[in-house]
Amino acid sequence: MSSPDLTPHPAWLPDAAFAALLTRTVAVLGEGPCLDTVRAELAGAPSESVADAQLVVARADAAAIAGLNDLPDAPIDGHVTVRTADRVLIIGRTDADALRGFYALVRDEATARLTGEPLPHGTRISVAAEPLRMLDHWDNIDVHPWMGQVERGYAGGSIFYDAGNIRSDLGRVRAYARLIANCGINAVAINNVNVHAREARLLTDDLHEVVRIAEMFRAYGIRTFLSVSFGSPMMLGGLSTNDPLEGTVADWWSATTADVYAAISDFGGFLVKADSEGQPGPFAYGRTHADGANMIAQALRPHGGTVLWRAFVYNHSQDWQDRSTDRARAAHDHFAPLDGSFAENVILQIKHGPLDFQVREPLSPVLAAMPNTRLALELQVTQEYTGHQKHVCYLAPAWSEYLRFRMDGERSVADIVAGSDGARGGITAVSNIGADMFWTGHPLAQANLYAFGRLSWDPMAEPIALLDEWIALTFAAASEAQLPRIRSALHAMMDESWLRYEAYTAPLGVGFMVSAQNHYGPGIDDYEYSKWGTYHFADRDGVGVDRSVATGTGYAGQYPSPWREIYESAQTCPDELLLFFHHVPYEHALHSGKTVIQHIYDSRQEAVQQLDAVDEAWDSLADLIGTTALTSKYDERMRELLAEQRRNAVEWRDQVRTYFFRKSGVPDPAGHVIY
Amino acid sequence: MSSPDLTPHPAWLPDAAFAALLTRTVAVLGEGPCLDTVRAELAGAPSESVADAQLVVARADAAAIAGLNDLPDAPIDGHVTVRTADRVLIIGRTDADALRGFYALVRDEATARLTGEPLPHGTRISVAAEPLRMLDHWDNIDVHPWMGQVERGYAGGSIFYDAGNIRSDLGRVRAYARLIANCGINAVAINNVNVHAREARLLTDDLHEVVRIAEMFRAYGIRTFLSVSFGSPMMLGGLSTNDPLEGTVADWWSATTADVYAAISDFGGFLVKADSEGQPGPFAYGRTHADGANMIAQALRPHGGTVLWRAFVYNHSQDWQDRSTDRARAAHDHFAPLDGSFAENVILQIKHGPLDFQVREPLSPVLAAMPNTRLALELQVTQEYTGHQKHVCYLAPAWSEYLRFRMDGERSVADIVAGSDGARGGITAVSNIGADMFWTGHPLAQANLYAFGRLSWDPMAEPIALLDEWIALTFAAASEAQLPRIRSALHAMMDESWLRYEAYTAPLGVGFMVSAQNHYGPGIDDYEYSKWGTYHFADRDGVGVDRSVATGTGYAGQYPSPWREIYESAQTCPDELLLFFHHVPYEHALHSGKTVIQHIYDSRQEAVQQLDAVDEAWDSLADLIGTTALTSKYDERMRELLAEQRRNAVEWRDQVRTYFFRKSGVPDPAGHVIY
Repeated sequence: MSSPDLTPHPAWLPDAAFAALLTRTVAVLGEGPCLDTVRAELAGAPSESVADAQLVVARADAAAIAGLNDLPDAPIDGHVTVRTADRVLIIGRTDADALRGFYALVRDEATARLTGEPLPHGTRISVAAEPLRMLDHWDNIDVHPWMGQVERGYAGGSIFYDAGNIRSDLGRVRAYARLIANCGINAVAINNVNVHAREARLLTDDLHEVVRIAEMFRAYGIRTFLSVSFGSPMMLGGLSTNDPLEGTVADWWSATTADVYAAISDFGGFLVKADSEGQPGPFAYGRTHADGANMIAQALRPHGGTVLWRAFVYNHSQDWQDRSTDRARAAHDHFAPLDGSFAENVILQIKHGPLDFQVREPLSPVLAAMPNTRLALELQVTQEYTGHQKHVCYLAPAWSEYLRFRMDGERSVADIVAGSDGARGGITAVSNIGADMFWTGHPLAQANLYAFGRLSWDPMAEPIALLDEWIALTFAAASEAQLPRIRSALHAMMDESWLRYEAYTAPLGVGFMVSAQNHYGPGIDDYEYSKWGTYHFADRDGVGVDRSVATGTGYAGQYPSPWREIYESAQTCPDELLLFFHHVPYEHALHSGKTVIQHIYDSRQEAVQQLDAVDEAWDSLADLIGTTALTSKYDERMRELLAEQRRNAVEWRDQVRTYFFRKSGVPDPAGHVIY
Repeated sequence: MSSPDLTPHPAWLPDAAFAALLTRTVAVLGEGPCLDTVRAELAGAPSESVADAQLVVARADAAAIAGLNDLPDAPIDGHVTVRTADRVLIIGRTDADALRGFYALVRDEATARLTGEPLPHGTRISVAAEPLRMLDHWDNIDVHPWMGQVERGYAGGSIFYDAGNIRSDLGRVRAYARLIANCGINAVAINNVNVHAREARLLTDDLHEVVRIAEMFRAYGIRTFLSVSFGSPMMLGGLSTNDPLEGTVADWWSATTADVYAAISDFGGFLVKADSEGQPGPFAYGRTHADGANMIAQALRPHGGTVLWRAFVYNHSQDWQDRSTDRARAAHDHFAPLDGSFAENVILQIKHGPLDFQVREPLSPVLAAMPNTRLALELQVTQEYTGHQKHVCYLAPAWSEYLRFRMDGERSVADIVAGSDGARGGITAVSNIGADMFWTGHPLAQANLYAFGRLSWDPMAEPIALLDEWIALTFAAASEAQLPRIRSALHAMMDESWLRYEAYTAPLGVGFMVSAQNHYGPGIDDYEYSKWGTYHFADRDGVGVDRSVATGTGYAGQYPSPWREIYESAQTCPDELLLFFHHVPYEHALHSGKTVIQHIYDSRQEAVQQLDAVDEAWDSLADLIGTTALTSKYDERMRELLAEQRRNAVEWRDQVRTYFFRKSGVPDPAGHVIY
């Protein structure tokens, strides 16, 4: 038996992306693990004196000592690039800044090759817009009986853990750190927010293993976080309570946290999911979430650590018969009253929508409701509700929409979470990677991880331009003739893929309608009579959830103007959110001019039809298969998944259309087959 | 920590049931393991000479030698009871017959105490109506990640297996053998029909462990069967094919089977689920099920063994969009053409209905279609679709209906499967027991196991009378004053419980509508767009599956007259099967006079209301709790489950009613709250 090739795909950092740089003479100045990383990256290039090197990467202090003057001050969390005809200087205030500057250079040069637009000479300063640029891993050490090892993971097992332990070989972790450092990430939480007993021990018994992982990340300027259980004092410490106002509990956290920092001096802090979907929390003791978060924050504060506290708190034992309760209200109801009461090293982590990472939701009103609290926006790179990395679904256009959205008509979400001096937040997301050889299951899902990182650095970046960057890097081995064809094909497949996915799944913002078993494929009524609080209320006359103030759950009133007024009325509510905010008859006319029922019939049909063009785009690259840029393994995976996407999309189309035909009795004048 | 009482509940064989017998003088005559069992049962009674003993249990040959003449010939698979004023004789042709006669005596005496009807003097001959009286265990050696150890088991783990191996202590197996011997069972298959790799090895590597289990059963007159995989030659034998017409395959089965009989001379045979829900089978080689079954039968034949071949074969990857396919047709389509082509030691095992153990289905037409094949009726004692042994659901009334049903207007199902000389079959059922201290989860579910055994011996027995027997035995420790109250309460709870369960779940024979996750609780649309072929086709106008010949799938035509005509028309089809056979408007009038929609609303309401009387019946025994007859543990379990049954029944009522209200738009004139 020949041994299979287990080398992971290089994702957006193939050797070819570095090849041109390695032909230059280089000098790397300064100390620090990230500059050692730069040195390793440039090991193949000839060294040269600072004065003569064609490429200089330096920490600011070392640059000054080496006589590189007349440079602007290196910014906090950013880098300076000085490009002249025969030389590029990259200067960072810290070694991590310098490394990120170096990777930016790799990206920029690859992209210039793709677009043909030369890089401008002169001095450019790039500063991260979001201080926190984080990936959360929902990885478990043990394999869960039906969830697998990575909760909502669609790319194989964990790169951190194997067979109930931390991996002895952390090579994939190092490769991962390199990939995400390249796109701007500076923080990673390495275990599931649902902290089970085995994983809880990462905080204590297995801390020495976390040290090994943190070392990998440190060389790429990334701080390590742990998800911790609010129940740790009882679970791990043998205490009789987890009450945040008990001195023994606070003492336990302080002592435990001090041990963590003694082992990992640049440890990031803790991510906590409390009082949520069965996790323990402060409610059990009659305490607020501020009480809970602040107590843990106090333990972290002497060490410069941060608590990320999730706002995903709702009653998951709702009574579907009680139409007045509304899960969408929960985060605002729970957290808005606590604004201003969180400690300075607490960041409240808020999912982008009020429900749960649906393909279409309005922005969470909590984002506008807590001006005196540090906030982080939580996104989901892993495609829990967007096709399990079996469907092409490029999510950057969605994220871009969220980040640009002006919650109060003025400040963008990106600005709100970035915060201001002393109270800064950022963006965090659930990672989509695993031990899969393509990292992400679907090879094109790599682009989501890449774009997430880039948007966390520059939220106003254009999703289509980010896709160009990703293509330029990923296919750097392509020839001048091949590259434009790859670019064209992938844009045809990916640019509109999020809207296409939306169009064949749940209509008009109503959400869910997904298989309750695993959140993949249609299950129109799967959540309709459930305790999860996620309904569409379709009956023979109409569909949608009335969340107006006047006649519904009042959720629309959680928004500031102008959104409260816009969402309140079915006449002004945007089509794509209509059924999220209103229960309307099937004959209700959309702004598009179509009725709701006709929209449901047509858009599902059109979306599936568009998959023809997607397949054709991939087919157009057939003659490139087997070249360095595009391996036959890549092609095999792509074809397998494109077929699965089509099968599943047809199933969505047919189930949704049949469901609404059976309910409404309205025939489809377009004559589509409805079963 | 005090050690918990782990003694299993005695079920229907408490010591009190034997107490009166042990006061008599006894003589036990003859050899054999089952007579040793009788001797052990009577060890507490004073021995006496045959001439003077008040109770004599004897094998016929020993009785003759001992001079007990003037007795009728002991029948095959039965026993003779001779009762006079001062003496009872039990005579069996074999030691097992004698043991079953002895247990019948225990039962009869207990029942007489309950009913107050004295046992008649004279000679009675009791003969089993069904030759095969079998229990199938869907037990796995390993614990399945989400199914647990016992597939569709609701009573804890397996009594046979623990932690991946055969239990070293088989005490529970012995106790179980005693219980089921008491009610007439003579065969047990000890592992799941879905044979996984670990369990396949029971046939070979672990045969010595099967020997231990067979020994337990032998002492109670029960033959041991194994479920085997049709894929065994490849999986266990290293062969390159499982083709039944390949000589190497037949040779492997012959050699392997010979090894089994060398170790277990009274081994029963094999149970095979082939080409069903992913199990391997003859279809892969273009062979028929007769080819497959006959090849294995040939291996068993020299040893007197039997193949039980399941007819549960259907396409479980159906296209819901194709309304012409019908899973209900599958068994008849596959097997009816094979009538007469099975070897003489093959028994075709047929589920009672054409789908899958639903609370209401018509009888399988295969039962009428194979006069030249030995048949067994398969029932399900484990409550997969009837409340998971959390709901009170006494199933004997259902089984009795099936057994008495005249498939062709003449012969009953009981007679058909009993067969005639040389081609006899019987009844088999999936067991409902596990390592639970009450054996069956719900203590009252013990009655289902008991009644199944008794019906397999006497299919015409009255379910209500069998319940009396079970009560009389189970509560033998109750005083004369207590016993009538227990009898009255349990009849109030159990007599109508099957119909009540039907009335709050899926209506009018339409089936399923059950949670696809685990088959517990409502999931009205869970199977509606699935590959499993189980639909109700509810739309805004009506509901039900058109299985008529004239306009539907033609399934009704698989029945002989008069049923094909009766089922063909919605006018003559019995109400309880209407939606199984017809798609009708919600306003369709039932024979009851109600419309379909009103029936759906009303019957669910009434069924839940009836639970008040069930609770009251149990409450009426409150003062008996803590007595020998009724322990507090029994009461705790009962109360916990009665509460769960109510919660779940309310959920069923509300989801079914709301679902149909939303679809039909018909308000409930009775004014029930519909959400």
